[in-house]
Amino acid sequence: MKQVAIGIDIGGTNTVLGLVDQNGNVLAKDYFSTAKYNDITEYTNKLSGNINKLLERLSQIEVNLHIIGIGIGAPNANYYSGTIEHAPNLSFKGVIPFVSLLKEKFPYIQTITLTNDANATAIGEMLFGGAIGMRNFVMYTLGTGVGSGLVVNGNLVYGQDGFAGECGHTMLIPNGRLCGCGVRGHLEAYCSATGMKRTAFELLAKYNPSDSLLANYTYKQLQAKNIYDAAIQGDAVALEVFRLTGYWLGIGLANTVHHLSPEAIFLFGGPVSSGELLIKPTVESLERHLLPVFRQKVKVLPSQLNCGDAAILGASALAWKELNLPQFFLVSNIREPKTKN
Amino acid sequence: MKQVAIGIDIGGTNTVLGLVDQNGNVLAKDYFSTAKYNDITEYTNKLSGNINKLLERLSQIEVNLHIIGIGIGAPNANYYSGTIEHAPNLSFKGVIPFVSLLKEKFPYIQTITLTNDANATAIGEMLFGGAIGMRNFVMYTLGTGVGSGLVVNGNLVYGQDGFAGECGHTMLIPNGRLCGCGVRGHLEAYCSATGMKRTAFELLAKYNPSDSLLANYTYKQLQAKNIYDAAIQGDAVALEVFRLTGYWLGIGLANTVHHLSPEAIFLFGGPVSSGELLIKPTVESLERHLLPVFRQKVKVLPSQLNCGDAAILGASALAWKELNLPQFFLVSNIREPKTKN
Repeated sequence: MKQVAIGIDIGGTNTVLGLVDQNGNVLAKDYFSTAKYNDITEYTNKLSGNINKLLERLSQIEVNLHIIGIGIGAPNANYYSGTIEHAPNLSFKGVIPFVSLLKEKFPYIQTITLTNDANATAIGEMLFGGAIGMRNFVMYTLGTGVGSGLVVNGNLVYGQDGFAGECGHTMLIPNGRLCGCGVRGHLEAYCSATGMKRTAFELLAKYNPSDSLLANYTYKQLQAKNIYDAAIQGDAVALEVFRLTGYWLGIGLANTVHHLSPEAIFLFGGPVSSGELLIKPTVESLERHLLPVFRQKVKVLPSQLNCGDAAILGASALAWKELNLPQFFLVSNIREPKTKN
Repeated sequence: MKQVAIGIDIGGTNTVLGLVDQNGNVLAKDYFSTAKYNDITEYTNKLSGNINKLLERLSQIEVNLHIIGIGIGAPNANYYSGTIEHAPNLSFKGVIPFVSLLKEKFPYIQTITLTNDANATAIGEMLFGGAIGMRNFVMYTLGTGVGSGLVVNGNLVYGQDGFAGECGHTMLIPNGRLCGCGVRGHLEAYCSATGMKRTAFELLAKYNPSDSLLANYTYKQLQAKNIYDAAIQGDAVALEVFRLTGYWLGIGLANTVHHLSPEAIFLFGGPVSSGELLIKPTVESLERHLLPVFRQKVKVLPSQLNCGDAAILGASALAWKELNLPQFFLVSNIREPKTKN
């Protein structure tokens, strides 16, 4: 018998899905446009159709397939109620009882679990990445926004309402930059990919360096990748963007360490692929802002999940985590962490 | 048979100790000067002597006394190792194996548990105060410093090293006031009783109001209590100190909510006795700095522990919590919370 979990990641642009075994091997995967569907019924029809196609495809290779559960990563997802609530970047508005809708399609699957994408990535890291064997760690995801997933005593922190772990919205600079949520000064407004672009334009305005490579981009055009490329070529503004982003991120991470004292903080997302350019100033700032008792103790690591499959791995890990088989954890905990491709 | 826990709170000035039953009744208590003892052996001799006296006293009333454990609250205490490490306000320097030392004195007591005083207060609140029945809540203690204890899924968060929950050292204003720990801008430098004094002097310097009642105190003289008394008399500077302290504390609490999404935040300590003067601006600022999904959800409450016995109750609660008897929790969870005297 081959046991697999179904992992689904619902993004604003695309939905990716895959079948994942207990060692984190993605046995089959697929994707389709989320944005194309405005109606939740049409969307779940499309999704369940694609799931069934994946299962059919795999069952031609694996005769005796057992599905242990479905894990779903989605924005504004509530673990307790299984709902997606007022997600700003999805076209399904209001409160969507997503787990119930999927249970109607797959009544034979016992466990269907939903949480936000950063939480799913954290669980993915714990079961299939660099956090194997860790009981207390934190995941920060840097993208359009800043997300986070907090693991305490081997379990994700969901809080009273299922929405805990929104460290992107901790305060960095009171009355500072306007955050997408409407409050001023949140970490996300400084340390997301968008935040890096804002920093670049702030620096251009402040120092007027017409020879900077970044002076050739409109605000609409500029992306974090362009800042990285310029930094690699030694552009002073681009280098300063990374130094400042790391400085600010280090303050945010220090706040998390003062709350939870984790063993490690994993960083995930586009800006993290710049490696030491971001991580070096981040670690320096983290150490500088910590109480002495926490210094030199917390590892800051890039996620060890294969970037291409991270969303599927994270979502499927939710299902494997729910299964919570002792023999599975035994196996997974003695495995070497997968390294990035 | 009468079951009791021994609760010990080690403060820089005094050590208080007491015998507490499972309903949070303090059956006997005592205290002595901590500061008088420079030698840890002499100190533990004195402490065990006083414990034995308390037990003798109580055993004259209760014939069949059973001690379920000892709980100790102390600064810089490590729950995992049972050690007190480099506590700046104690005369015992270095790493003191406190639990081991006490086990030598009381080999017949199975469970001896040590943690910092804010953590002990949080457990006290959970077993004997306003947090009865809550699984996710937070305790902030405002005094000379700002301490905190975080409860997630019914358990204190200790982190990788036993030192988690130092929210007083989260960042409020980067490069702001110098904190006692040596880092600039931490919450403690603004929202502790000492922080309130600093705010008062900052405001005097800024607005030059020679008619303020606070203009009559030296920096050495001024205490939070004086600021409260002046505020009650309508002193504009004193009122502004409370408004600003609440504004800053609200930002700190919002950071904690964005991490843990607790059901309630309890405030404990001298400045909290000012009631709405502090709590009103705190709640306003908290709500203003939260993501919409968290607004109007988190209760901000003064601790319900009897102030005079809070330290003993908190420390003894550690022992009761370790015992973890299901029937005890059943009883305690249906009891009405104790109200403040």
